[in-house]
Amino acid sequence: MNMTIHDDPVAVTVPASLAGKRVAVLGGTGPQGRGLARRFALAGLEVVIGSRDGERAVAMAEELTAEIGGPVGGGENAAVAAGADIVLLVVPWDGHARLVKELAHVLAGKVVVDCVNPLSFGKHGCSPILVEEGSAVEQAQMLLPDSVVVGAFNTISAVLLNDPEQGRIDTDVLVVGDVREATDLVQDLAATIPGVRGIFAGRQFNAHQVEAFTANLISMNRRYKAHAGIRVTDI
Amino acid sequence: MNMTIHDDPVAVTVPASLAGKRVAVLGGTGPQGRGLARRFALAGLEVVIGSRDGERAVAMAEELTAEIGGPVGGGENAAVAAGADIVLLVVPWDGHARLVKELAHVLAGKVVVDCVNPLSFGKHGCSPILVEEGSAVEQAQMLLPDSVVVGAFNTISAVLLNDPEQGRIDTDVLVVGDVREATDLVQDLAATIPGVRGIFAGRQFNAHQVEAFTANLISMNRRYKAHAGIRVTDI
Repeated sequence: MNMTIHDDPVAVTVPASLAGKRVAVLGGTGPQGRGLARRFALAGLEVVIGSRDGERAVAMAEELTAEIGGPVGGGENAAVAAGADIVLLVVPWDGHARLVKELAHVLAGKVVVDCVNPLSFGKHGCSPILVEEGSAVEQAQMLLPDSVVVGAFNTISAVLLNDPEQGRIDTDVLVVGDVREATDLVQDLAATIPGVRGIFAGRQFNAHQVEAFTANLISMNRRYKAHAGIRVTDI
Repeated sequence: MNMTIHDDPVAVTVPASLAGKRVAVLGGTGPQGRGLARRFALAGLEVVIGSRDGERAVAMAEELTAEIGGPVGGGENAAVAAGADIVLLVVPWDGHARLVKELAHVLAGKVVVDCVNPLSFGKHGCSPILVEEGSAVEQAQMLLPDSVVVGAFNTISAVLLNDPEQGRIDTDVLVVGDVREATDLVQDLAATIPGVRGIFAGRQFNAHQVEAFTANLISMNRRYKAHAGIRVTDI
């Protein structure tokens, strides 16, 4: 089992709800996962990166630790999930169900944050995949009856998350879920990224269109040469 | 055929693309349609309100004309659609297909702007209705092979559109469609509302999640006591 945790304290204040909580980012070696892990570590949270390939996760964790001067751990998915309180799923859609099934036992009792966008890419652009269960979030919840699944971080740009020149990201993270305590916690997690607000955006049965909306953001990115995101107005 | 057009000139500059173009708002007696007609008339556009009940449309047109001091016309749906260049559909979802079928002949050759959100309301809140054709926009396009259908104005608050104290509405209108000339025109139409940008947000096959997203906005409105909208960031 490859697992490295650097446990030096970081001199940043984290919200009380997240104090002492370890955040695992499964799929943390991809751009979105790397960017989220990077931002959470910058905010002073204890972060571990997971991957099917534990050595890749350790290498990415060391790269991030070197970049940001704070401790990031890494290891195989199951190991880092087992040691975490909050587990983010940031894997490609086609590996989503398999990963969730494999880890159902270690994810029991935890808050699972599904960040996966079921999308396909065709010659006219990107479009949503219809998910039998309704959404990635609902699929995960069905496969994880003993976890609380929350959807979030679907619409935040990986490029901006990873850009050292972007101290702030002025966008919102839409948080969907059925358990208030868990959606509140994930809103707090989102808000650790400077410029970001975590906004409650409905129950699990309204997760699909948030996941699918990334197809629209990709269309906007192409048209406007941007890294589009969402800010909710009047809130 | 009940149809009244007040054609006094209004001293407001409209964009060149909309000069001389008449805008019909079918379903203009409902809050969303009323609010859009109101804003377009305030911007100096020639606006006609349509309804199944022509007398109700005329009454609403007279009410708006009195409120804003500019001319708004009204009449039965078919009559106002026939005389317009751009036709907005702002009817309830359960009347959408029927209305579109009935008007297919008069809508031929026009830009049809579908503003309809297929939503249902249950005890746990509002959720999207799965549309066989994919979305209201795609349903309309299938039924209107000789029109160009664009989706827009799905996420803008009817309350804010109708509020005389809201001179500006700081939100974006997401515009989806397959024909650039038509989406450009509808973006210009959106931008006649002070504070609003019309943002191209993808092709028709990505209309569903924009329509469905209104369910999330309704969830946010309940949680935050707001009239939530979307601003696209980094554009």
